[in-house]
Amino acid sequence: MRWTRKDLLDLQSLSADEILAVLDTAREFKAVGERTIKKVPALRGKTVVNLFVEPSTRTRISFELAAQRLSADVINFTAEASSLRKGETLKDTARNLEALNADFIIIRHSAAGAPHFLARVLGAHVVNAGDGAHEHPTQGLLDVFTMREKKGRVAGLKVTVVGDILYSRVARSNVWALRRLGAEVTLCGPPTLVPPAFQRMGCRVTTDLRLAIADADVINLLRIQHERQRKTMFPSLGEYTSLFGISRARLREARPDVLIMHPGPINRGVEVDSDVADGGHSVILEQVTNGLAVRMAVLYLINGGESSGVAN
Amino acid sequence: MRWTRKDLLDLQSLSADEILAVLDTAREFKAVGERTIKKVPALRGKTVVNLFVEPSTRTRISFELAAQRLSADVINFTAEASSLRKGETLKDTARNLEALNADFIIIRHSAAGAPHFLARVLGAHVVNAGDGAHEHPTQGLLDVFTMREKKGRVAGLKVTVVGDILYSRVARSNVWALRRLGAEVTLCGPPTLVPPAFQRMGCRVTTDLRLAIADADVINLLRIQHERQRKTMFPSLGEYTSLFGISRARLREARPDVLIMHPGPINRGVEVDSDVADGGHSVILEQVTNGLAVRMAVLYLINGGESSGVAN
Amino acid sequence: MRWTRKDLLDLQSLSADEILAVLDTAREFKAVGERTIKKVPALRGKTVVNLFVEPSTRTRISFELAAQRLSADVINFTAEASSLRKGETLKDTARNLEALNADFIIIRHSAAGAPHFLARVLGAHVVNAGDGAHEHPTQGLLDVFTMREKKGRVAGLKVTVVGDILYSRVARSNVWALRRLGAEVTLCGPPTLVPPAFQRMGCRVTTDLRLAIADADVINLLRIQHERQRKTMFPSLGEYTSLFGISRARLREARPDVLIMHPGPINRGVEVDSDVADGGHSVILEQVTNGLAVRMAVLYLINGGESSGVAN
Repeated sequence: MRWTRKDLLDLQSLSADEILAVLDTAREFKAVGERTIKKVPALRGKTVVNLFVEPSTRTRISFELAAQRLSADVINFTAEASSLRKGETLKDTARNLEALNADFIIIRHSAAGAPHFLARVLGAHVVNAGDGAHEHPTQGLLDVFTMREKKGRVAGLKVTVVGDILYSRVARSNVWALRRLGAEVTLCGPPTLVPPAFQRMGCRVTTDLRLAIADADVINLLRIQHERQRKTMFPSLGEYTSLFGISRARLREARPDVLIMHPGPINRGVEVDSDVADGGHSVILEQVTNGLAVRMAVLYLINGGESSGVAN
Repeated sequence: MRWTRKDLLDLQSLSADEILAVLDTAREFKAVGERTIKKVPALRGKTVVNLFVEPSTRTRISFELAAQRLSADVINFTAEASSLRKGETLKDTARNLEALNADFIIIRHSAAGAPHFLARVLGAHVVNAGDGAHEHPTQGLLDVFTMREKKGRVAGLKVTVVGDILYSRVARSNVWALRRLGAEVTLCGPPTLVPPAFQRMGCRVTTDLRLAIADADVINLLRIQHERQRKTMFPSLGEYTSLFGISRARLREARPDVLIMHPGPINRGVEVDSDVADGGHSVILEQVTNGLAVRMAVLYLINGGESSGVAN
Repeated sequence: MRWTRKDLLDLQSLSADEILAVLDTAREFKAVGERTIKKVPALRGKTVVNLFVEPSTRTRISFELAAQRLSADVINFTAEASSLRKGETLKDTARNLEALNADFIIIRHSAAGAPHFLARVLGAHVVNAGDGAHEHPTQGLLDVFTMREKKGRVAGLKVTVVGDILYSRVARSNVWALRRLGAEVTLCGPPTLVPPAFQRMGCRVTTDLRLAIADADVINLLRIQHERQRKTMFPSLGEYTSLFGISRARLREARPDVLIMHPGPINRGVEVDSDVADGGHSVILEQVTNGLAVRMAVLYLINGGESSGVAN
């Protein structure tokens, strides 16, 4: 297929063909990452701006490396000490970056919809690196990429997402991509954080971890982020771990070929025990590697690249 | 002409020919910025250090991009967490950067004269990116570049600068460049902030905005920076806006072809209304684009480049 | 000789041949730094991550420049606002960086042994940029490089290190390298900070500065770091300066060809007077220049480069 979007804002609006185009292109870039010289000249002379209004070293570095390996120049712009602190609006900041001939704006923002807003007012390419509790599309794509690489397919896979579904942009992006590609999704967590409304997105919703993992091909564990949750909606950490954490004992109740995934950084002993995080089922570090390939693919495609034979 | 200066420290000491050499060279680099591949190899293998002792994301990024597009390597050095915090003198910091073979030091500092001091003690090229209330020469150059591009000339232009003239390095750099090139400059603002002494720089000084804008070809609005002004010298924000802010109504009292300029970041509704900032008279975003070209030209010229036929 | 180590963790475990291989290679890279184009393609397509858990702008910039001049891509990762702040372990952070295909991890950490730990769990090359009070091997190498360049040899040199020996990683790395290459080392400082145990490392230990500098070929002054020392072990600054600071008067008691060294940043008027720091005996800024060459050599060698004829 031919990619036509200027931006990557969410997975909800992507077709199955578009998602597959990213995954196929990412596979090629992953092969590039295994060469001695890991760079391709696709974005030479282009400028990528990392506009991280909400801090995230990990995602920022992944995008920065992706841009470097495509031979782009990268500018890091964080909210600290910036003109956003001086009362400048996001729109003005972004327009100024565009006036500096920025070709790509990678935005992480605490407000849902901020990337969509920028995409409307800017000619530059916009990539959503996480907007509030809305979406984190490159995370969703790298998760699906990893499942497909390990299981050979996505259609028909049984995927269970565990944690604070309500406030999780990772969960939302996972659900959209998985449903579009025909996977069966189960959402599991404390009742206050897994509202039945998610059934309307085509997911099974349960508060029973045993049920949720019994036949799962993939268990994707969300990070518990105390700083964001309203205390009244969340049990204690100990209670969360005893009900929803994955220990070695609990893993025995899952399929022998189950994949354990996590977007990182992991809270060892909370969402997942170290045994499991570092064990044979875990593909957590491969997700990180795949994230780099997926982000290269996204930058490459929205820049106008073809989705095949391109990583040269 | 042949450029012979090692540094760019201020506009006060530049001849008209030198200013025009920067403007002509910047015009060539602006054309480079419109190509698909926006890089030229002029500074390949050179190191540019952004030594920003006073923070300024916007100016720092503009210099960083300028250096990247000339193929230089860029190091960002901010005062936070640096050895300047450990009591090291500016001179020692700068000498250390030079000992690391830095070829260019771009310095932003709260003390007037800091760049001149460095230029004397260092063999490296020094560029003033704003020193206290003294000068901000690349801002002055990009302002003049923009006026010349839009109006076709600078000599004879009537330029009005509005705001806190007393504490503004932008105003000073504008005045020096505009007077040198033969423009007529009017300075306008609250009486405590526009002292009559500026008449000695060859400017008209007034506190009457209506008079100041009546026949202006260009209105350059300074940013109100509450953090810097002594409270006793400054009216309230509301009073400032009612007397010196540019609204659509007030703009009708100006010439129909007047240019509205602002060094950014703008305080919408204070110095300028959104209608005006985003309207047809405004060239605020073009100033940003031109700033990049001007900074490329400055780095290029002080590195020893010729002021014509160079952007290849 | 052929370099076979994956990492550079300390000088204690290096053979004299290995140290000399770094020094010889650094000499070649120093010559590269004097060319117009100071880059070589040795690490093109490689990624170097500066993982600075303890801040150090100066050392970080030196490594960043070294990597840039070898044509590597550089990512800066500081502890502020990073996932280390979110409770992630150092091991998980490092594994994530490796999963992003980082080829080199330069680590500065307040805990002694942190680099050794990373080197065991990672396939990436690890370079110790200072770990607690343990070692700072590239500082030791650049100090020895400078002595050898200025004095023509290291064997038989009389080197006096002055200051807070007990807590100094610089002192330790100096001692290991100097002893391995056959220099005679004297350690001098307040009695609480220069314990007799250092005699077991083959050093002379004294609290008498006059004795320590009388026949020294080199005086290496350590930085006084109040933030780290326990107050009860340290005299007042004034007392320190009067007993252990090097003034012009005291310098007259040393050999006429003595070298004055300091790892920087210097506290003028504390460890050393400005007269001396900026005088003819001082090689403090040359140490900075040499540090860049030494770090290029280290990255080059652990990447698998040969220790001769390589800087092309």
